[in-house]
Amino acid sequence: MKNLMLKMEYDGTNYHGWQRQENAITVQETLEKALKKITKEEITVIGCSRTDAGVHALGYVCNFHTSSKIPAEKMPYALNSVLPEDIVVYDCREVPRDFHARFWAKGKKYRYRIYNGKYPSAFERNYAYYWPYTLDVECMKEAAKLFIGEHDFRAFMATGSRVKDTVRNVFDLSVEKKGDEIIIEISANGFLYNMVRIIAGTLLYAGVGKIDVERIEYIIKTGDRKEAGITAAPQGLYLVEVYY
Amino acid sequence: MKNLMLKMEYDGTNYHGWQRQENAITVQETLEKALKKITKEEITVIGCSRTDAGVHALGYVCNFHTSSKIPAEKMPYALNSVLPEDIVVYDCREVPRDFHARFWAKGKKYRYRIYNGKYPSAFERNYAYYWPYTLDVECMKEAAKLFIGEHDFRAFMATGSRVKDTVRNVFDLSVEKKGDEIIIEISANGFLYNMVRIIAGTLLYAGVGKIDVERIEYIIKTGDRKEAGITAAPQGLYLVEVYY
Repeated sequence: MKNLMLKMEYDGTNYHGWQRQENAITVQETLEKALKKITKEEITVIGCSRTDAGVHALGYVCNFHTSSKIPAEKMPYALNSVLPEDIVVYDCREVPRDFHARFWAKGKKYRYRIYNGKYPSAFERNYAYYWPYTLDVECMKEAAKLFIGEHDFRAFMATGSRVKDTVRNVFDLSVEKKGDEIIIEISANGFLYNMVRIIAGTLLYAGVGKIDVERIEYIIKTGDRKEAGITAAPQGLYLVEVYY
Repeated sequence: MKNLMLKMEYDGTNYHGWQRQENAITVQETLEKALKKITKEEITVIGCSRTDAGVHALGYVCNFHTSSKIPAEKMPYALNSVLPEDIVVYDCREVPRDFHARFWAKGKKYRYRIYNGKYPSAFERNYAYYWPYTLDVECMKEAAKLFIGEHDFRAFMATGSRVKDTVRNVFDLSVEKKGDEIIIEISANGFLYNMVRIIAGTLLYAGVGKIDVERIEYIIKTGDRKEAGITAAPQGLYLVEVYY
């Protein structure tokens, strides 16, 4: 048995997220079916994290154990030949027997894309969140700085989540304007459920003056979800990289 | 009655091209239904040109006559509120009574996008043509120059087309590499059926050495479709601009 790690990108538009579930097509299930086709084995893939329906990945990492004789470097070609076109495997390598894509992850980087044009874009509808209001990007950049560092982020977690330890360390959080697009990038040692989308929504509120920059620290301190901004739509979110 | 001109972009992935037809959803039909919803009139829209299934538009132009009292500048908002998200109207203005989006066009500009990464892209599958082979972009640039000017382009027209006058004036044809992407842009006073896609296919053949650059002039001279390259896939093609 070998332990193989895969790196892949997927367009999440047509999937109910990563994790296998009843009555809905997911990336995990689609990948496991493709693996069965080429290895003839019943393989359970270990993903680096769940992703929500409509969320995309540029550098998703997973691993699985197999007796297949297909060399690791041929695996992307073999898999891509049977996978649908919206999932592309671009790296495969053998990893230590106990490597676990989720438990071994030391952190992750996400991107959140906002389309801020005068009219929505026919091409970005599934790949960015459309925000028609004028944004003060400098304000968003100022607000972003306040999230960096180790904080209790429970104000930025979906209501109903049951995680007990809500302290996370945000390594970096940047906001950049490129034409009509605003790109938020955030890396941290871990993320609470919907944390990136709620931080994106809070930065949007800061950008339109609905939340004062000075208020961010207060919101973090209170831990009150209702004080933070909206949960920005899933189609703007990309898992960019997993750190090991 | 006013004559209104619209400018729009559309993602052609889910449409059988522009022109209304039986048993298939087209952009024209979708737009005419939207116009009916907001004007209550049975409107026939005049498009600047046909586009094939899967082909995209960034600057499609069309016009229609209406008695509607909706001011031209409000028309994009009114239409976008009832159009599906993959069609976006971003300009509307009143034009002379005899303006005709097709007959008045003095020329058009198209873009053809090629994705030349080591693996296909999950995100570009409907928006660029995937070409996995190494391309000599300098060779493609040299080949492109030979198309510029007034030539008989019948070697670059889909077999079976019945157009008699096959002389067109190519104003410009450029090839540019941006990361893993190769972008071809071509402007001309008019285009034969599939002309851009066949020129793109011929440039790809030049890029892999399957057609010598010197041979391009000979192919134009013979007018033989079989001498030219493949018809590159529709999803790489964008109508960028119409000149009036």
